[in-house]
Amino acid sequence: MFDYNGSFQSAIAALKRERRYRMFADLERKAGQFPHALWNSPSGKRNVVVWCSNDYLGMGQHPKVIEAMCAAARTMGAGAGGTRNISGTNRALVKLEDELADLHGKEAALVFTSGYVSNHTGIATIAKLLPNCLILSDALNHNSMIEGVRAAGCARQIWRHNDLEHLEELLSRAAPDRPKLIVFESVYSMDGDIAPLEAICDLAERYNAMTYLDEVHAVGMYGPRGAGIAEQEGVMARIDVIEGTLAKAFGTLGGYIAASDAVVDAVRSHAPGFIFTTALPPAVAAAATASIAHLKTSGAERAGQRTAVAATKAALRKAGLPVLATETHIVPVMVGDPDLCKRASDILLDRHGIYIQPINYPTVARGTERLRITPTPAHDIRLIQQLTDAMISVWQELDLPLGTDNEPVQHRTQTIAAGG
Amino acid sequence: MFDYNGSFQSAIAALKRERRYRMFADLERKAGQFPHALWNSPSGKRNVVVWCSNDYLGMGQHPKVIEAMCAAARTMGAGAGGTRNISGTNRALVKLEDELADLHGKEAALVFTSGYVSNHTGIATIAKLLPNCLILSDALNHNSMIEGVRAAGCARQIWRHNDLEHLEELLSRAAPDRPKLIVFESVYSMDGDIAPLEAICDLAERYNAMTYLDEVHAVGMYGPRGAGIAEQEGVMARIDVIEGTLAKAFGTLGGYIAASDAVVDAVRSHAPGFIFTTALPPAVAAAATASIAHLKTSGAERAGQRTAVAATKAALRKAGLPVLATETHIVPVMVGDPDLCKRASDILLDRHGIYIQPINYPTVARGTERLRITPTPAHDIRLIQQLTDAMISVWQELDLPLGTDNEPVQHRTQTIAAGG
Ligand SMILES: Cc1ncc(COP(=O)(O)O)c(C=O)c1O
Ligand SMILES: Cc1ncc(COP(=O)(O)O)c(C=O)c1O
Repeated sequence: MFDYNGSFQSAIAALKRERRYRMFADLERKAGQFPHALWNSPSGKRNVVVWCSNDYLGMGQHPKVIEAMCAAARTMGAGAGGTRNISGTNRALVKLEDELADLHGKEAALVFTSGYVSNHTGIATIAKLLPNCLILSDALNHNSMIEGVRAAGCARQIWRHNDLEHLEELLSRAAPDRPKLIVFESVYSMDGDIAPLEAICDLAERYNAMTYLDEVHAVGMYGPRGAGIAEQEGVMARIDVIEGTLAKAFGTLGGYIAASDAVVDAVRSHAPGFIFTTALPPAVAAAATASIAHLKTSGAERAGQRTAVAATKAALRKAGLPVLATETHIVPVMVGDPDLCKRASDILLDRHGIYIQPINYPTVARGTERLRITPTPAHDIRLIQQLTDAMISVWQELDLPLGTDNEPVQHRTQTIAAGG
Repeated sequence: MFDYNGSFQSAIAALKRERRYRMFADLERKAGQFPHALWNSPSGKRNVVVWCSNDYLGMGQHPKVIEAMCAAARTMGAGAGGTRNISGTNRALVKLEDELADLHGKEAALVFTSGYVSNHTGIATIAKLLPNCLILSDALNHNSMIEGVRAAGCARQIWRHNDLEHLEELLSRAAPDRPKLIVFESVYSMDGDIAPLEAICDLAERYNAMTYLDEVHAVGMYGPRGAGIAEQEGVMARIDVIEGTLAKAFGTLGGYIAASDAVVDAVRSHAPGFIFTTALPPAVAAAATASIAHLKTSGAERAGQRTAVAATKAALRKAGLPVLATETHIVPVMVGDPDLCKRASDILLDRHGIYIQPINYPTVARGTERLRITPTPAHDIRLIQQLTDAMISVWQELDLPLGTDNEPVQHRTQTIAAGG
């Protein structure tokens, strides 16, 4: 007799042995007081400061966004009530797609229930519609992209992370008339480095490849209207498909692609993860639209974030903490050991009221465990000083390595996904 | 040079040739006035009555649900701000999972961004954790389950829809100590028929198989507390994993599994579609919790739905329309031709202000095209009479087949998914 329960229990036991078992911190965010939150600790509610949120600009608590959500819920109800095809397409969603197409300067956009789903079903569907497609995927792509590439079921090759020579080598080896899809991110979420977009576009044009860019960690935050790194670098029109999320800098939920009418219509008509699922509630769509529209014209949040990021990096570096050099809003502080990383995080939370989740394998490669800090416009100088003092104290207590000349770590493999 | 745009355009052209190209009706639901909605027609806004919503009980417009959504948005913000592991676990979500575990009488529950994702990543993860697992999948399972079965990458066999003998044959052929996962639905959404749950549980016990049941079209609506068909038939405790959605009868967004602590913890720790994506917003979780809690104790919505369903079936049958015999709240009226089905739907909308989306291939098998009607507690006798009159007029105008002894149609294959 097969022992089902035993199988699941031993899978969990293995994670615990390898120190990979994850406990979720139960938080209660307080709108209007971000980054302050209540932590439902084992011993009761406690005030904490969140330093690892992906609500990068605090838009999830912006009064306009919350008001848009409530107004839509009051007038249109709490849910969409159906798939997009069967009574689930609503005015708020149609407006959101118009807003997104405009944001990225594309003919059309299509909204999914998450960025994960947009990558998964989007990449798979696009590749399946291209006969004998070859997918070229960056080695550090997010799990949602990896799953999309797998689900496509076509040939795939992995190019070394951000390595243009390797990408060109693979492109030049493929038959010139074979369809090729280059799949990559702009800001990589764990190391905070940026892909060479312009050079990738050059290669794509030279070898007649199609480009699919994940701007999940960039939309809202880069470019004059918050359309991402491609906008900032003036290459948006050269990217065929831009994918993004509504759940990070835009502060709500959902994902999307923006592209030509033909691509969007083909994905709309063929992608199972789009077709066979209930549409996003009008309230969520309206909140996202308010957030995007606000960030299209307001630069204050982006400026506030840049200031906080620069101040945080400077303070931590000055204290001798091992900050990974990044060009972005992501500030990884290296620990290099899963147990110590977890303990550092626990002490920060327990004793200093600072919440920074440890980032361990498989989210990052073993030996590159870290605390990943994401300063937002709401993290002021006082909070930055508090953070720095707390980190110094933890670093001393656990005797963690110091050092300021950390370079990006790029030896993860395609099977090890970032995020999560 | 490969012509990318041409590829996508010709995929669309093929759908149009086969009459499978779908146009979404752009609706504006009016909270408090369901099933009335505004349709943004090509010629301007028009009032319509929605007869194909999967907000089966109208809970999406229930004041308690809307209030819970707004209250949570006001106090906790519009989004979760992170994955479950990285700052995205919130109080509202933890409460929702407690509510769901209680609803189904299981040790634990786990929430995903949709029912689609819960099936996709849930089935794949469970099967992968069972060495050399054999999946036995009902032939009419929903696309989300089919994709989950595929993603599991293990051996799979399809049993003929609701055919116990075939299921037993397949179970008995497998080695006794091999882990087996039986994957099936309770209410099948397009034909409205119900699986023989008790007999499937008997077989699962006899052959030591694990059971995974999709109750997406049953939760909220069947059983004394709205836990679904398994509750109604007293077999809930015998099902290992119950999967459901928050987006249909509960009127919001999201999906879940309820199971033992070991299964839930293993899926929580291994499922990529759960780990690598932003958590559901607290506002959505709070709205879902309010809806579930309400339907646990209130039977009024279920009674109202039963009354409306019985009256609708009786009225349409009396008029001689070809209603498919079902035991559930799903009322399919058969057309049997994609073009006529689309035209019937168009005339109903244009001339009678009645919105019922045509259901064509691939959602159902060719030759079984239909209008799928879902009466809710808000569809009163007057609306039912209006619907009946309109349908008669359309049936006469298009010279559509009549007949009242329609049996469930069960010749779809696994590649043809229901839903969407
Ligand atoms: C690069 C990348 N793409 C996509 C996603 C998924 O987006 P979402 O959270 O909207 O599912 C994530 C993380 O969540 C990510 O890091
Ligand atoms: C049987 C079945 N399971 C799962 C789903 C997916 O649920 P959700 O809409 O929450 O993604 C659907 C339809 O949407 C369905 O019909």
